[in-house]
Order: sequence, then C-alpha cells, then structure tokens
Amino acid sequence: MPIVEIHLIKGYSADEKKRLGEVLTDAVRLVVPAEPDAITVMMHELDPTNYYRGRTTRSPAPAVLDPAKIVRDYLSLMETRDLDAAQSMLAEGFMMTFPGTLPMTSLKDLIDWAAQRYQFVTKAYEGFDVLQGSGDAAIVYCRGTLSGAWPDGKRFENIRFIDRFEVVAGKITKQDVWNDIAEKRSSHE
Amino acid sequence: MPIVEIHLIKGYSADEKKRLGEVLTDAVRLVVPAEPDAITVMMHELDPTNYYRGRTTRSPAPAVLDPAKIVRDYLSLMETRDLDAAQSMLAEGFMMTFPGTLPMTSLKDLIDWAAQRYQFVTKAYEGFDVLQGSGDAAIVYCRGTLSGAWPDGKRFENIRFIDRFEVVAGKITKQDVWNDIAEKRSSHE
Amino acid sequence: MPIVEIHLIKGYSADEKKRLGEVLTDAVRLVVPAEPDAITVMMHELDPTNYYRGRTTRSPAPAVLDPAKIVRDYLSLMETRDLDAAQSMLAEGFMMTFPGTLPMTSLKDLIDWAAQRYQFVTKAYEGFDVLQGSGDAAIVYCRGTLSGAWPDGKRFENIRFIDRFEVVAGKITKQDVWNDIAEKRSSHE
Amino acid sequence: MPIVEIHLIKGYSADEKKRLGEVLTDAVRLVVPAEPDAITVMMHELDPTNYYRGRTTRSPAPAVLDPAKIVRDYLSLMETRDLDAAQSMLAEGFMMTFPGTLPMTSLKDLIDWAAQRYQFVTKAYEGFDVLQGSGDAAIVYCRGTLSGAWPDGKRFENIRFIDRFEVVAGKITKQDVWNDIAEKRSSHE
Amino acid sequence: MPIVEIHLIKGYSADEKKRLGEVLTDAVRLVVPAEPDAITVMMHELDPTNYYRGRTTRSPAPAVLDPAKIVRDYLSLMETRDLDAAQSMLAEGFMMTFPGTLPMTSLKDLIDWAAQRYQFVTKAYEGFDVLQGSGDAAIVYCRGTLSGAWPDGKRFENIRFIDRFEVVAGKITKQDVWNDIAEKRSSHE
Amino acid sequence: MPIVEIHLIKGYSADEKKRLGEVLTDAVRLVVPAEPDAITVMMHELDPTNYYRGRTTRSPAPAVLDPAKIVRDYLSLMETRDLDAAQSMLAEGFMMTFPGTLPMTSLKDLIDWAAQRYQFVTKAYEGFDVLQGSGDAAIVYCRGTLSGAWPDGKRFENIRFIDRFEVVAGKITKQDVWNDIAEKRSSHE
Repeated sequence: MPIVEIHLIKGYSADEKKRLGEVLTDAVRLVVPAEPDAITVMMHELDPTNYYRGRTTRSPAPAVLDPAKIVRDYLSLMETRDLDAAQSMLAEGFMMTFPGTLPMTSLKDLIDWAAQRYQFVTKAYEGFDVLQGSGDAAIVYCRGTLSGAWPDGKRFENIRFIDRFEVVAGKITKQDVWNDIAEKRSSHE
Repeated sequence: MPIVEIHLIKGYSADEKKRLGEVLTDAVRLVVPAEPDAITVMMHELDPTNYYRGRTTRSPAPAVLDPAKIVRDYLSLMETRDLDAAQSMLAEGFMMTFPGTLPMTSLKDLIDWAAQRYQFVTKAYEGFDVLQGSGDAAIVYCRGTLSGAWPDGKRFENIRFIDRFEVVAGKITKQDVWNDIAEKRSSHE
Repeated sequence: MPIVEIHLIKGYSADEKKRLGEVLTDAVRLVVPAEPDAITVMMHELDPTNYYRGRTTRSPAPAVLDPAKIVRDYLSLMETRDLDAAQSMLAEGFMMTFPGTLPMTSLKDLIDWAAQRYQFVTKAYEGFDVLQGSGDAAIVYCRGTLSGAWPDGKRFENIRFIDRFEVVAGKITKQDVWNDIAEKRSSHE
Repeated sequence: MPIVEIHLIKGYSADEKKRLGEVLTDAVRLVVPAEPDAITVMMHELDPTNYYRGRTTRSPAPAVLDPAKIVRDYLSLMETRDLDAAQSMLAEGFMMTFPGTLPMTSLKDLIDWAAQRYQFVTKAYEGFDVLQGSGDAAIVYCRGTLSGAWPDGKRFENIRFIDRFEVVAGKITKQDVWNDIAEKRSSHE
Repeated sequence: MPIVEIHLIKGYSADEKKRLGEVLTDAVRLVVPAEPDAITVMMHELDPTNYYRGRTTRSPAPAVLDPAKIVRDYLSLMETRDLDAAQSMLAEGFMMTFPGTLPMTSLKDLIDWAAQRYQFVTKAYEGFDVLQGSGDAAIVYCRGTLSGAWPDGKRFENIRFIDRFEVVAGKITKQDVWNDIAEKRSSHE
Repeated sequence: MPIVEIHLIKGYSADEKKRLGEVLTDAVRLVVPAEPDAITVMMHELDPTNYYRGRTTRSPAPAVLDPAKIVRDYLSLMETRDLDAAQSMLAEGFMMTFPGTLPMTSLKDLIDWAAQRYQFVTKAYEGFDVLQGSGDAAIVYCRGTLSGAWPDGKRFENIRFIDRFEVVAGKITKQDVWNDIAEKRSSHE
C-alpha cells in the first residue's frame, strides 16, 4: 500500500524524477514488505513562487548527477588511459586502495604499480549497486570480471572483482578495489 | 527543501519507522542535493478502518527485518561455527562464492574448504552498506579486515575483505566474498 | 491509479467509514476506468480540536443512516402489516405511486386498494441500488419478484417488481412502484 | 465539512472532471449529512512524469463515457428504429427483459414482439439515476411516461415506465423494463 | 518544523502570494516558537476546473489590496492636501479621532481643526504594523515622528505619533491618532 | 475557499491550537478576500516517531505564551504597583517611552516620573491587537481610556491611550505609550 508523496520545487527533468521515483520505491521496500506495484510515488512540483521558507522563495538546486554514471564514466576513462579526463573526475583528497599495496592518491602511481601486475585489463560488469550513505557520500559498487594479459603476455580472464566508490558533490573521493588476481596469479606462476 | 510524506497502515514500531525515515531521507539525496537537515519526512499512519483498496480495508504486513542485522547475525553464527543456526538463515537455493574456488551451496563444504586456507578467521567490520535492489533482494555489503591464523598456525591480521549478500524475505539467498588472503598468503609463503 | 483522500472530523464508526470507502470507490469508477483494486481511499480523521472553519471548531454530525437499510426495514414492516411502525418511517408529505391507481399518501388507503389486487404478497429481493441524488434525497431502488395470492386465493409467484424510494434525513418521502401484476393478472383472469 | 482530494494523472477534460466532482460530492452525502455547499472536492492532476507505481510512470486511461449519455443515445436510436446503430451499442451477451415476455437477446425479436403491443411508442423522461455497481457495471435508471398508439391505432399516453440498464466498458449489457402498459391495455381492451 | 500548506484557486500574482507566504509564516510564530527558517509554506494552486464546492467550480476572488499600502497612499494624499483623492479612499461612515477634539467624519472639518494646531505637518515613518482583526477590518498601525510648524510659524520636530487605521474591502473606515503635540505645545507656549 | 493545512509535532493544547487556528485564518484574510466561514484550517498532529528531519526525530517546542496575555498580566501588576513581579516580566535591555519624557529603563524611574503626572491611573481596555513582526518580536497593542486623579487630587477620566509592546521569548522588550494626558492636563490647568 504505501503511498509516498514528495514536494519539490519545479526544475527537475523527467529522467531525474524517474531516478527519484525508483530510489524512493526501493527505499520503502527496505522496511515495508510491499511488491513494487503496490508502492505509489507522487511528486508535487511547486512553482518557486509557491514555496516559502523563512518568508522567502527558494530556487531549486540542480539535481545530483547519477553516481553510477559518474563511476562508469571514470572507469571507461581509466580503461582507455585518458588520465587527464579521469583525474578531473576526482575530488581533492581522493584516495584509492587496491589489493596488495598501500593506498595511493595519484593516478600516475596507480598506473606504475599496475604495470607490474598486468599489461592491460578490461572490466566486464555484472552489476552496479548504488546507495546514499548517511554522510555526504553516495556509494557505488560495481562488480564483474576482469580479463587482460599478465606481464609476460599470457592472457587471463574471468577474474572476479568488486570496486567500491564514494562520490561527493559529483566527484569521486574514494575507491576501494578487491579482486582475485592474486588467487589466479599464484596458479599462473 | 524536499518534503516527503508517506502514508502507511498503522502497525510499525518506532524502530521500523526510524529505519524508514532514514532510508527515505537518503534516497532523496541520490537525486536532490539537499543536506539531510533540509529533508523532512512525515509519516501518516492510517488506522486500518481508514484505508480502503478495492472497497475493502487492508492489514499492514509486518515490517521487513533489517537486512544488515540479518547479515550480522549470520556472520556471528559462522564465526562461532554454529552451523545449524546459520543454515536456518539461508534460503533454499543459497549459493556462495569465495575467492579461488567454485561456488558452493553447503556450509559443510565451505568449512572443509576453508580449513585448507586458515585455522580460524575473525572479522572486524569497517562498515555496512544496505540497499534494496530493483528486484526482490535487499543487498548488504560488509567490509573490514580479517585476522586469524594460517594453516601452519602463524597469525595474520589486517587483511581487507568485502562480502556482498542478497536477502529475500528475511533469508540470505547469495553471498559473494572478496578478500586479500591470496595477496598475503603469497607473501606469507 | 486514483487516490482519494477524505478529511473528516473524528466520530464515524468503522461501518460508516466502510460505507463511505465503498461509495467513494464506486463514484470514481463512473468517470475513471479503474479496477476497484486500483482505487485507494484514505480517510484522515481530525480531532475536533484540529479542525477550524470561521476560526471555530466544529462538531461532526452523526452519519446518515444507510438508505438501503431504511427501505429494507420499511418493506419488512409493510409485509408484516406493522403499519404504525411503517408510518413512523415516512416523512411528512410522503407520496406513493403504484401501478394502475392514483398517487396515495396514506398507508391505510394503500392497504385498502391492495386488498382488491391480492390477498397477500411477499417480496424476494434480487438487488438494491443506492445513490445520492443531486438534491437532498438519497434514492434507493429495490427489485426482485413478488409471490402471493390473488383475491380468489390462487397463488402467484415470480412476478417482477421494482420500487424506487426517495429518502431525506432518514425518512422516506416518495415511493414509486412498477411491477408485472397486470400482465399476470390478465393471464390469470 | 468533508474535504475530498483526488489525485489523478493529467488527461481528463473539464467535463469529465466536473462529472467526477459531482459524483464524489454525492457519494459523500450518502454517509455524511452535509449540504453540498459544505463539501469541497479538490483534484490534483499529476503530470505523467510525476506519478510512479512499481517504479514506472503510467498513462491515464481515457475517461469512462457517461453511462446516462450512452443510455439516452441508445433509447433515441431505438425510438427512430435505427437498429444497426443501436445494436452497435450492445455488448456481447446482451439480454433484455420486458413485461410479460421472456428475456430476449436480439433487437429483431424485440421489434417483432413489440409490434403486438403497440404501433409505436415515445418516451418522455422524468429523470435519470446513475450509479456504479460494486461490480463492473454502471447502472442507469431512466423513468418517465410512454405515449404512442395501440395496435388498433388508438392513442395512449402518460403510461409510467422505468428502465434499468447495466453498462460495462461503454457497452450496454442488460436492460430491464417495467411499465404500466398492461394496466392501461386492460382498461383499453 | 511547522509545514503550512494552503490550497488556492489559481489567480494570485507572485507578489500577492509572497504577502500570503509572509503572513502565514508570521502567524505560525505567534503560537509555535520556530525560527522563520524552520517554517515552510507550500501553496497549491488549483485550476478552477479542479476545485468544486457544492458540485460546482468556483472563481477566485481578486486579492485584497495590501492594507499598509492603502494607508501609506492615503497619508501621502493628506500630506499634499489632495483631499478629493484622499476622500475617495474612505468608506462611507468613516470616522476619525484626533487628540483633544471630538471624532470627525469630514476631511474638511479635519483641515479646519488642524489649522489651529499647526501650519503644516510632515510624517517620518518608523514602522508599520498590519494585522487582520477577527472581524472584517484589517488594522494598520503606523508610527514615527512629526515635524512641521506651529501656528506662529515656529518649527517643531521629532514629535512622536501613532495612527491606527481600520480598512474594510479596500476602504478606510476608521482612523485613530495619538501624538505628543500637546506635550510639546505646552512647552512651546 | 482557502484551505490551510498545518503539520505539527503533537504536543499543543486545545487552547494553543485554537489560537493557531485563529491567527492562520486571519492571516489568510489579509490577502484572500474570504469570509472567515469560507476558510478551513486543518491541523495534522504528528507523533514524534512520525516526523524526521535530518534522519532524526524531533521534539515539539512548548508553545509561545499568548503575547496579549503577557501584556495584560504586566499591566495589571503595574496598576497594583507589584513592581517585583512586573520587573520579572521584562527582558534585559527593556526600554519604555512615555509622552513628554525621555526613554526609561527602570520601573522605579517610571514610578517616580509618573508621580508628577498623576496620583493614580486605571486603564479601561477597548481592544488588543496582536501580530508577529517579521523579526523575533510579537507586537501587542492595547488601547482604551485612562481614569485617575491629577496630582492635586482632582479626578480625570476618559483620556484616550494606546500602548505598543514588543514581546520576545515571553519577555517584554519594549513599551511605547501615547495618550491624551497633556491635552487634558492643559485644560485642567
């Protein structure tokens, strides 16, 4: 049954509202055991002249970019080694942690380190999971399998991976990576 | 600004409503760039005699159990090797995937396999992330570090891990595990 | 989809609210082609201290009696010839029109006239239809079949009838009757 | 006092909304003893991008045709013996019951049978009553008086009649007719 | 926290709605101890085809003119002695009471009387206070200081005054004036 | 027509809600030309477990004391010269301005000064006007007539007065007084 109403200042696109309709529906289901079809979301858009807080009208803030899209774009740029563009998507203070090494802050360091692990790597995605943390960061998980070539040129494939990203104000602040490369590398060696 | 209203048939506890208030607030923030303090959630509880669908009243379904709590409880039971109780938390068709081995369906198989990897292992949690998938499964991520003993008795600690669980109707249907055990084991060897 | 909300001052019983939920659902369907299950009715009951019109609180008026029940009760009283009780259910100015005679205002006149038509008559109901007219009268239709005995004692049965009642403020103001008695009487004669 | 709010996907005409405003007002009065002027109906029209059920937007269904208009049109076509057009307004399985004969399903049969009853007949309407049944059928009552000519050419007039129609999805599924023709014919004979 | 929603038939200007947003916010604060920023006002404008009372649509009445502006305009006209225009702003039955004289009804009488008090006077405003009385009158207070010349031509300044106006349907019905002219005049004499 | 809804955390008394219903009704009328009877105010009280801002529940603040009552109480205490109790109703920084003297801050100074003006004085109230300013102060006007005795013991009566008070957080911060004492005193002298 649950019926959700949200009051918004006018100014969001159909796509942005659709994203909102979806996440509100999903959120309800974390507590109320309702099929999606039993959950209604109604959005009431208010003209800015119809909304007052503190006696004054307010302007709507532009929508948050889809964090999953930000992460997808970043991963594409990294795969094609477009490091400048990738760098521009990172927040100041960005930190990334990969298996078997210390946290890094620079894409240059990452590339250097990775060169010892593989010649190249490509991600096949199985799924993305997105949620808003209780703090400012949206959290994006992507998981799937890696394929590529070991430093000696031999191919590998089907190695499981998962990445966890934190995104704040449209910039990536944190990346954590887990994968089975060490499992496979041992057997490769 | 966004103001969220949700209409519910009466019957949820203060804790359940708090969880709902939190996830609705968080969901809004995935699209609308508002500070939490700028997001209001109002819940309107309807007496069952005040809600009609199809001309008839409806009863509220009991709340969904907190998926994070389900996962925590399961992981505790596994750590203490209370396999019967752990098994009772698994859905039929449960499948788990660990690093460096094929998917398993039985806790017995898991225990046997793990015995070759370590004598024991303890999890220290850094954080849980919970979201409702677009299907029926709630998804729970937990991450942190492992400590324990290798098969030869030597201790290890501070090994990063992340688990991904799917929970449907209060039962765990799927567990995927990634960790740096292979990274550390290699150096251990 | 349609979602109906009604704001009421507290004071109606579960039965009265159920009647209201039903008629609101039905009313929607006269214009919006929705299955009943797609129509939600939510009732918001306001404590009298929470409702103000003209700066003052208001008391809820007792619910309107179910007009169908009023008509059923009246017809029962007439079948058992409890004329005093039946009379007490009629408004001043009550008028009734039966097939083949002029309008009557007195139950006594009706009984006298009916005596020439049949010895007794019993109604089997097929259905009641109730609606609120655009004026003050609620309108109740009941239809079904008559059985009884002609003045000569011969039995009849299965004669179609329909009655139309107007009910204002709990009293019956008008009754119009149609039936096939003349059709059957001709063949009987 | 009662205040009714209805949430609709945008797409209904002013006339359709007026019909809805009227029937909702009338429905309330079957339970709450309020003058029409004390009943407020507010319609909230939602852009399709502002309404979600099951995470997806929905399109509004075209309004239900006014059942009273359907019946009026049908009766006009029958009076002018435009049988093809009249037939097109009937649902499959249509059944009609007239005084003193068995139920009929074909307009042709009806015309044949009526030819023995009168040369022609014209209806003067006193009123229409419309309601939605609890099932799929809208119910339309029309009542008034018949005038016309007996088979022998003599005129009659002022004969009371009432028709009950059921209308489903814009088609007439059932017609039940009662009138005083037998009463008058007897005296005519 | 308080959230105020007001449902209006469409037809008010942004300025009129802003005035409404302000007075509703202020009104809440007379009872609920909330900072203005904690008070949200949402206005829901209804197309006339979406609002029904007594089964019929209604037209919105033009907004009430800002009573403070009416009073300001009147006082300007009086200062420039544009008596005809000032007179046109007064309701029939207008009555004014000034210090040390009987109530007057005619601007001509006022001018005559004032001529004995001062050669001219100019108002410097410190503030306006506006409220709606519980009756039909809006009440406007304006206060500040007077400067001008005594009948003997000597200048005065900085004399405190306060005026209280009642405004009904856009016309001034009552003016009450208090000031310290007598205090100062005594010392002047 | 206007319909006002206010959402409040539960915890206000019937009297406090009545005050709120009145001021909201009055506020609407400053902009919308509706009779009071055409203005509906509905209050929706939320259990604290049903209201969330920033993901957390909130407690309702105790209602603001009626500023008119505060002023009445203060004036009574001053009339009976209960200076300690009166003093306790004043905010720090309280300032009062009376006709023909400089602003004062101490009740003692006021009493001394007044002793030169009259032996005693009593207020008869004609009316109170209360509004919330756009800042933190509620503003209370009271007006009426003074009676009492001049320093020489001769009686006076029917002298017009008006007081303007500012009240913040339940304490009086400012009092401004105007009256016709000087007008009458001159004639008395």
